[in-house]
Amino acid sequence: MKDFRQDITDISGKISKIGADPTGGMTRLLYTKEWVEAQKALKQIFETAGFAASHDATGNLSARLTGSKYPEQTILTGSHIDTVVNGGNLDGQFGIEASFLAANYLKDTYGPPLRSLEVIALAEEEGSRFPYVFWGSKNIFGQARRQDVENIADAKGVNFVDAMHSAGFDFRPEDQPVRKDIAAFVEIHIEQGKVLETEGKTIGVVTSIVGQRRYDIRLKGESNHAGTTPMGYRRDTVYAFSRICTESIAKARAEGDPLVLTFGKVEPKPNTVNVVPGFTHFTMDCRHTDAVALDRFTLEIEADMRRIAAEMGIEIEIDRWMDEKPIPMNKQLVECVSHLCEKHKVNYRLIHSGAGHDSQIFSPHVPTVMIFVPSIDGISHNPAEKTHLDDLAEGVKVLAHTLYQLAWTEEGGSL
Amino acid sequence: MKDFRQDITDISGKISKIGADPTGGMTRLLYTKEWVEAQKALKQIFETAGFAASHDATGNLSARLTGSKYPEQTILTGSHIDTVVNGGNLDGQFGIEASFLAANYLKDTYGPPLRSLEVIALAEEEGSRFPYVFWGSKNIFGQARRQDVENIADAKGVNFVDAMHSAGFDFRPEDQPVRKDIAAFVEIHIEQGKVLETEGKTIGVVTSIVGQRRYDIRLKGESNHAGTTPMGYRRDTVYAFSRICTESIAKARAEGDPLVLTFGKVEPKPNTVNVVPGFTHFTMDCRHTDAVALDRFTLEIEADMRRIAAEMGIEIEIDRWMDEKPIPMNKQLVECVSHLCEKHKVNYRLIHSGAGHDSQIFSPHVPTVMIFVPSIDGISHNPAEKTHLDDLAEGVKVLAHTLYQLAWTEEGGSL
Repeated sequence: MKDFRQDITDISGKISKIGADPTGGMTRLLYTKEWVEAQKALKQIFETAGFAASHDATGNLSARLTGSKYPEQTILTGSHIDTVVNGGNLDGQFGIEASFLAANYLKDTYGPPLRSLEVIALAEEEGSRFPYVFWGSKNIFGQARRQDVENIADAKGVNFVDAMHSAGFDFRPEDQPVRKDIAAFVEIHIEQGKVLETEGKTIGVVTSIVGQRRYDIRLKGESNHAGTTPMGYRRDTVYAFSRICTESIAKARAEGDPLVLTFGKVEPKPNTVNVVPGFTHFTMDCRHTDAVALDRFTLEIEADMRRIAAEMGIEIEIDRWMDEKPIPMNKQLVECVSHLCEKHKVNYRLIHSGAGHDSQIFSPHVPTVMIFVPSIDGISHNPAEKTHLDDLAEGVKVLAHTLYQLAWTEEGGSL
Repeated sequence: MKDFRQDITDISGKISKIGADPTGGMTRLLYTKEWVEAQKALKQIFETAGFAASHDATGNLSARLTGSKYPEQTILTGSHIDTVVNGGNLDGQFGIEASFLAANYLKDTYGPPLRSLEVIALAEEEGSRFPYVFWGSKNIFGQARRQDVENIADAKGVNFVDAMHSAGFDFRPEDQPVRKDIAAFVEIHIEQGKVLETEGKTIGVVTSIVGQRRYDIRLKGESNHAGTTPMGYRRDTVYAFSRICTESIAKARAEGDPLVLTFGKVEPKPNTVNVVPGFTHFTMDCRHTDAVALDRFTLEIEADMRRIAAEMGIEIEIDRWMDEKPIPMNKQLVECVSHLCEKHKVNYRLIHSGAGHDSQIFSPHVPTVMIFVPSIDGISHNPAEKTHLDDLAEGVKVLAHTLYQLAWTEEGGSL
């Protein structure tokens, strides 16, 4: 197959300029000038290559090759065009570029596909401008509700709806039927972790996207003078937090992969050297690929926290504000991609995704699979986000093999 | 003896007005307008009562009764006139008021003392305006050095020296000999803890002031995505902190009173729910009345911290920026006050001070003792700082008994 390294460098050079921050990194938020410019540049690239490109009502950009035999079946591939604030130029963007390069190569090499092939630049995934995530993919399935965004605004006070209108887009017409033509969705993405790098793998075939529960926990004890309060008189919330964190992480490590548990934020009050902290707010983030295991583990930790707090005479308030179920990828598609990796001697492994992706919105509706390429040092959402060019090129190849299988072969229809 | 309750209410009413914050509490910082006004009001009270009142060069205010038999021996009693920002009206201030009320009562009842008796309103103890503590008491013993304050300024940028000059004071003349006349120093103060209240005691006779070590500790691991980083790949500094805090506080509790150990400040970075914190800064404050025990315990904890960090692949930086030795009070004076409490059926106990006081500056130079009265709920450095009037009055009585013993009796000279 073709060596995609130069193609990747070329297309990335064009798109990475749009929304580039002066000191490095990218900021391309939904419906901003930079976002409009990027979608416009992509549309031009798609059309120049002979794809039929168009936006849907909300701003998802599609580039289609109509199937010669099964035009009503669409193999969809792509990712999101928006970035986090001062993010890198691979998260989302690489998935669109790779999808286009693979599709374009296949078209040039094998002519029109049997099934329709559509490259998609999804409008939004990150939730970085407005407090709403997956606006792009949710609109595909009529899951994005008007009332969810009607009263939200960005940090500058700009309304979601005004921003959408000024970018030239609008709500999806409510009488429009949901797309039924999508036969499969394939998304290639950087791993954003360092499992592949550490294990020396080039490709990860994603088996599932973790479910996650996020918590805000508040401990209320008593603030006291650090010198005049004997240890036995204290209701020290930092000590309580520490016991909770130590016990819980030990349990999480004993539980083993794929469970992860993070206490990312700790905010004691008054947070000063010579006062026993009478109040501590902290967060907990727990993820697992198995819904039952996630539920069992977090309920056990919640009970542990209540027990430790009670032992110490400390009031505890546990707010579980996020509860997302794990989303499995399509088994047949996982097997298909794995088989293609084996066939083409690609150094791959099965992996789960610890981060959320558009694929988790697609998977409940249509057969979906994700392909990961390694992230150097696991860095992402950061200007230093990087993947070796050889790995990116290998990713495009595996995606091309997959899309060929799905869109150019008769067997692709049975997956 | 007299019931001092009305006298306390009267004098406190006059002094508490000066520097009162509009929404409650007191702010009377060194050399400010409020400070000058308070010293002036005290001087007038002292002089009206027939004491000879005068300032030393730096602004400590003394009111003297000359001894009839041993005028060259001075029994000194008092506390500091400055407050923390928005503090209460007892910390420091009550010690001056009580000293004056006791001395004045004794003078009116028994006539001139055998030894000179001096009530002192020390210029500064809190370090709340400038980054310097014990300016008042250190000047008594020539311990405050010109170079320590020449280059310091308050939060508004006002130089220490300019502030001192504009309040009408100056450095202690370098050729002036240090006072050799002080035969004893007695300071009455609120406990600022709740040991006395909890145990239902009216008076604490202070045996020693704790030594303290304070630390800034910095842990450097690696910030990672909370979803994509398996537990085994992490160098989580909040987990490391939690292990350190949990182990160390368990050890401190096992060690028992009077050791206290506090982790008052915890500042992880980036301090957000979905990132494993790669950096954590925290503080440790450890106090003990025994220098050897304090040294042994903190060295053990330092070693534990280094071991835990090393086990977890985390870099650790331990900065011990405060190391103050414990200061014992004078044994004979402690016995004298205890004996007087027993004689007058006062409900007292021996206690150590977990907070710093002017007495720790006096004690290495002259026989020194402190008397504590209870703090309601242990609250101090706060507008809610309060002590029951009955307890304040009992404190004045015990102080009066003590001063009588020291200044009016022959035996007082042998203490």
